[in-house]
Amino acid sequence: MNDTNYQITYQAGIIDALNKGLGDLPQPLAPDQAGQVKWNLLKEELSLPAAVLYEEKLAHNLDWMQKFVGEYGVKLAPHGKTTMAPKLFARQLATGAWGITLATAHQTLAGYAHGVRRVIMANQLVGKQNMAIISQLLQDPDFEFFCLVDSADLVDQLGRFYAARKQTLNVLLELGPAGGRTGVRNEQQQAAVLEAIKRWPDSIALAGVEVYEGVLKEEADIRAFLQRAVQCIKDLAQQGQLSKRLAHGPAVLTGAGSAWYDVVAEEFAQADIGQPLDVVLRPGCYLTHDVGIYRAAQAQIQVRNPVAHQMRSQLQPALQLWAYVQSIPEADKAIVALGKRDAAFDAGLPLPVLRFRPEQDQTPLASPAHWEITGMMDQHAYLKIQAGDDIRVGDMIAFDISHPCLTFDKWRHLPVLDNSFNVIDVVQTYF
Amino acid sequence: MNDTNYQITYQAGIIDALNKGLGDLPQPLAPDQAGQVKWNLLKEELSLPAAVLYEEKLAHNLDWMQKFVGEYGVKLAPHGKTTMAPKLFARQLATGAWGITLATAHQTLAGYAHGVRRVIMANQLVGKQNMAIISQLLQDPDFEFFCLVDSADLVDQLGRFYAARKQTLNVLLELGPAGGRTGVRNEQQQAAVLEAIKRWPDSIALAGVEVYEGVLKEEADIRAFLQRAVQCIKDLAQQGQLSKRLAHGPAVLTGAGSAWYDVVAEEFAQADIGQPLDVVLRPGCYLTHDVGIYRAAQAQIQVRNPVAHQMRSQLQPALQLWAYVQSIPEADKAIVALGKRDAAFDAGLPLPVLRFRPEQDQTPLASPAHWEITGMMDQHAYLKIQAGDDIRVGDMIAFDISHPCLTFDKWRHLPVLDNSFNVIDVVQTYF
Repeated sequence: MNDTNYQITYQAGIIDALNKGLGDLPQPLAPDQAGQVKWNLLKEELSLPAAVLYEEKLAHNLDWMQKFVGEYGVKLAPHGKTTMAPKLFARQLATGAWGITLATAHQTLAGYAHGVRRVIMANQLVGKQNMAIISQLLQDPDFEFFCLVDSADLVDQLGRFYAARKQTLNVLLELGPAGGRTGVRNEQQQAAVLEAIKRWPDSIALAGVEVYEGVLKEEADIRAFLQRAVQCIKDLAQQGQLSKRLAHGPAVLTGAGSAWYDVVAEEFAQADIGQPLDVVLRPGCYLTHDVGIYRAAQAQIQVRNPVAHQMRSQLQPALQLWAYVQSIPEADKAIVALGKRDAAFDAGLPLPVLRFRPEQDQTPLASPAHWEITGMMDQHAYLKIQAGDDIRVGDMIAFDISHPCLTFDKWRHLPVLDNSFNVIDVVQTYF
Repeated sequence: MNDTNYQITYQAGIIDALNKGLGDLPQPLAPDQAGQVKWNLLKEELSLPAAVLYEEKLAHNLDWMQKFVGEYGVKLAPHGKTTMAPKLFARQLATGAWGITLATAHQTLAGYAHGVRRVIMANQLVGKQNMAIISQLLQDPDFEFFCLVDSADLVDQLGRFYAARKQTLNVLLELGPAGGRTGVRNEQQQAAVLEAIKRWPDSIALAGVEVYEGVLKEEADIRAFLQRAVQCIKDLAQQGQLSKRLAHGPAVLTGAGSAWYDVVAEEFAQADIGQPLDVVLRPGCYLTHDVGIYRAAQAQIQVRNPVAHQMRSQLQPALQLWAYVQSIPEADKAIVALGKRDAAFDAGLPLPVLRFRPEQDQTPLASPAHWEITGMMDQHAYLKIQAGDDIRVGDMIAFDISHPCLTFDKWRHLPVLDNSFNVIDVVQTYF
């Protein structure tokens, strides 16, 4: 720690009654008091709709992924944009994560304010106020930060900004495939970026190489792209271009969203660049998993990856939405008080899985397989049922989801439940 | 006011640096201090992406709708679920709104905590904790609340709950069209609801009739449905079934989302039920308007409605998203730092309308007509450009949006701008 003042004053997020999905709160609670609430979901002590996390499944998923990366000897920097929940970041770090990946300057600030001290911002850092946010955090010598560059224009903008502040920014060269998202496409673009980096020897430090393989769909294309990244960082090392960040630690080679992290582990784990290297994977959705796009992706991983296959357990869906049946206006249609405001709907609609009738049932039961959400409005969902189904206004239904990211960002507070549906913590989000 | 204690302690929403889309905030600000920030959008003093409101357009839209309902002599209870922004609720009430419409118990609590004292909850109130929230607010004799019933089951659940607390709940009978959402479909369902209401003479007060016509698509069907509602409330009045709420004020007949409020005004304004009646319209999206689904709906209103036609001004899009160009990896593709986390994408993608190059341009210019968002990921948008376009990394682009509701709920704070792009207030949301 140096003597620079890098203090940021922010309001500790208070848990108060004005947030949806909580129980009775006569007084606001500090985050570390959340374990004191005595709410039970099945006693109807939460205001539904609510998004809930299941402690046992979270713990299982945390453990699963850490074991997986351990088998490959690679590092984990879970993508925090999925949950934006500092209490979950803390658990990821406590169970062995190397750092947290984030997508924006704002997200980085929210992570830092809650104790995260190593961030890969897997994105370009653009704009004066965004650069200023990072500059402020960089006054803390214990804070390590990486962001991506894929154009000379951006390198020059960053160089100018941080040179004026006498600070050094670690950057990762982003590679991108043709037709993809960000990232240099070819040698010419790459050379321009490297040339620009040389113009800012004191303010821009090339720390490694980054890819996001998730924009590709075919395994063969992904492997070829990953091999390009390995070759690139080898070349950079050989040319001595990675020397800048070495004062602080190994070079960095990083990739992997939540669908192809196993392939990235296979391709990157053995990379030998002739100098110390941290290989860092960045999946985000494993923590809560889902029953939609990421269950499908994980099923492929279980089949193709020997390490995942041998682990004899799978990721568990740890996030559900609970909502009430509010109306049964037609024999084959119920209306549920759950809407686009509450759940992701871009990668499949929520799936009903459990039903519970308050003051009658002892425990939730599996819901009929023919129940299906057929459409959602802002605050309502249409549930297809059959005439004669045992369903009543006031029944509670649990829904599994597809796409955790766009479900988390609908909620500022998510109760964490034990196996008896008691709330044992409340997780806050910072979107 | 009676002497019952109905105090609710909640944390005044603090504006702090951990929220996206704001400027530098060395210290958290109370909401009423937001006018003290000296940020200017064009000086890059906001962290983009940001969602901003334009003061002049907001004021215009507030005025426009109040004049419209004034011409028909009907009341306005704007649907607050759109913005969930108490500062905007306050302006709607200050300019003449009769009350605020909300969708859930949580939303009602958030409104109440910020001074809203008359709420139509245009939804069924279901579940123990949700009923408890409303029960707590009803301890305030100055708080007037209405919610919907469309089943005997729900009436009995509400009757039992509020009878035990010796409170009376105003309910509106909801009518629904076949194939629609909530609401009784036929005489038989309606009779069952009315019969149930009679079982709870002290705790359930039938205050009127409600419809949401927006589930229908054709004007003729909508008019027929609205006429059914008028006939229904006439019958109820004639049968003396509305007597319960009359101690507090006129009966209520209410309908209208943001697409058909003119037709509802025409059909409901002249309703004569032989006793005092408040006709209440509930549009929500007029306040910020958009350039997508609601511009299309409003264009139809301007054509078919003589009052709107004569007003010689139209609703203005008052909500925009600003974001940076972060990468231009291919000649016909730029990547913008704006994603599904930031904008509605269910009713059309954001439309680029303005461009601004910091430290070069004096004022934003119209963006080329061929620029188009072709896809969005969680944190990125793909912008289709043409080779040779004048566009650079670091350029700012303003986007108009379609579907304000699902844009507002991505943001906890929205700066309000004057015509010089100075931030003159910050609006907070409570989703």
